[in-house]
Amino acid sequence: MKSELSGQRARYLADDFSRGFIHFCGIKADRVERGLFQSRLKVEDQHRQQDGFIHAGVMATMADHTAGYSGFTVVEEDLQILTIEFKINFLRPAFGEGLVCRSRAIREGRVVIVSESEVFDVRGEEEIPVARALTTLMAVSAQKLKSKS
Amino acid sequence: MKSELSGQRARYLADDFSRGFIHFCGIKADRVERGLFQSRLKVEDQHRQQDGFIHAGVMATMADHTAGYSGFTVVEEDLQILTIEFKINFLRPAFGEGLVCRSRAIREGRVVIVSESEVFDVRGEEEIPVARALTTLMAVSAQKLKSKS
Amino acid sequence: MKSELSGQRARYLADDFSRGFIHFCGIKADRVERGLFQSRLKVEDQHRQQDGFIHAGVMATMADHTAGYSGFTVVEEDLQILTIEFKINFLRPAFGEGLVCRSRAIREGRVVIVSESEVFDVRGEEEIPVARALTTLMAVSAQKLKSKS
Amino acid sequence: MKSELSGQRARYLADDFSRGFIHFCGIKADRVERGLFQSRLKVEDQHRQQDGFIHAGVMATMADHTAGYSGFTVVEEDLQILTIEFKINFLRPAFGEGLVCRSRAIREGRVVIVSESEVFDVRGEEEIPVARALTTLMAVSAQKLKSKS
Repeated sequence: MKSELSGQRARYLADDFSRGFIHFCGIKADRVERGLFQSRLKVEDQHRQQDGFIHAGVMATMADHTAGYSGFTVVEEDLQILTIEFKINFLRPAFGEGLVCRSRAIREGRVVIVSESEVFDVRGEEEIPVARALTTLMAVSAQKLKSKS
Repeated sequence: MKSELSGQRARYLADDFSRGFIHFCGIKADRVERGLFQSRLKVEDQHRQQDGFIHAGVMATMADHTAGYSGFTVVEEDLQILTIEFKINFLRPAFGEGLVCRSRAIREGRVVIVSESEVFDVRGEEEIPVARALTTLMAVSAQKLKSKS
Repeated sequence: MKSELSGQRARYLADDFSRGFIHFCGIKADRVERGLFQSRLKVEDQHRQQDGFIHAGVMATMADHTAGYSGFTVVEEDLQILTIEFKINFLRPAFGEGLVCRSRAIREGRVVIVSESEVFDVRGEEEIPVARALTTLMAVSAQKLKSKS
Repeated sequence: MKSELSGQRARYLADDFSRGFIHFCGIKADRVERGLFQSRLKVEDQHRQQDGFIHAGVMATMADHTAGYSGFTVVEEDLQILTIEFKINFLRPAFGEGLVCRSRAIREGRVVIVSESEVFDVRGEEEIPVARALTTLMAVSAQKLKSKS
């Protein structure tokens, strides 16, 4: 378990955050501290359902990935983070012009990390809580991860 | 609660399935029966993480949306389905060329529907279970849904 | 949705809390406010596992029931609260002389209420967080509940 | 990961199952196979709520503990099983004279095991599904577990 987060590591994680599916979705790192990761999304038409609400899958993806990166802020740099499972409650419909997700590590184990995420719907100046997630992460050596596939 | 699913309704739900974010992700309806919905995704680079594994968010989105449509197969046609919450366990890394998701309604209430989803990683001829989800849905009148926003 | 909680209602809920299985387990109401319910347990041998740790089932029971009563504090007095589902993460082993559980309603719908619970292990002067739960509740008329069985 | 379950080990697990809080609740092992554990409870007044329904905490305790023992059937004998988290959906009210819980390991990792549980309400000859749970377990060496407290 790391006791600090260097500026260099924070910048690395912020850059590393938006690749593959997350880049495709347009979700970006917004704030990185030890034990905390915040991400942001400008909502476009492709993030919505037919009825104009933001799709639950967008919020779930954001909650999962941001929780994962909150895990990266508390482990040694040679470890990878896997999502074991998560649970997400949708508190109210989201239909604003953006989303913000804030994830905090609430349990920092050597192997198992638990993170809590809040997703907010950005409506002008307001940020309305729209989802809450609880995620279980596992820290594994990058070496081991590769040998799995 | 509906006791049957007409061919017309099944075709309508299959078409309706792939809109907005789900269309953007490329997830398509594959099989529709009363109480069961199956979807399919051809995995492309944008569905993966940096390490080549399929992103947990893709599987979560698929599990959520497919569960929702399994709910549509058991309610009256004038009702909408909302996801209240879901929980998903990732059983092993997914890295194949496609995903299949099968959702079954395991509790058909007038208001609350519970659905169970299995996600399979398609690797050639094989379909390997990679995720399992339990989703709580709510049936609301389309009228009411509109007045919420 | 109620906007206030009378002292009389708070006392009623505190008394009502410890019946049936909850009385059997020895869990008691500790603090009642609008949107918040706190309970307390003096841990005895029967709450432990063979290895001396407090059983996960005790914490789950406490989290579920206390969440339910946080729901009672935000609904009209003629409504009953049912647990639709909950998810609980065990953050670290609990082995102290007591447990405290604090549940807050984080979504107050007319039908669906979401509550978040924290369970603390009491070790002398310290209260260590040992579990976190997210619970979905449903408010139903007492009338309807009876006709279900 | 064990490939078989000896009769001796099965009997040991069945006996070991009902200790501490589980003994207090009266929950007993009923059937033990590799990857499967089934438990049973004769429902008494102390398992109910004020309204006569069986308390959600009883079903959650049963689902958690039985899932844990399904984990014991697939790991080496010197390992202990901890519950990392679980999620449980209550499908319908339970009010019968007994409960049966059946847990199956659906992911057998070296460290992380996932188990699925079904709880049935025994009403005369019938067994009605009343709850479904998804549990994440961790296998740890008995040695390590002790040094934690």
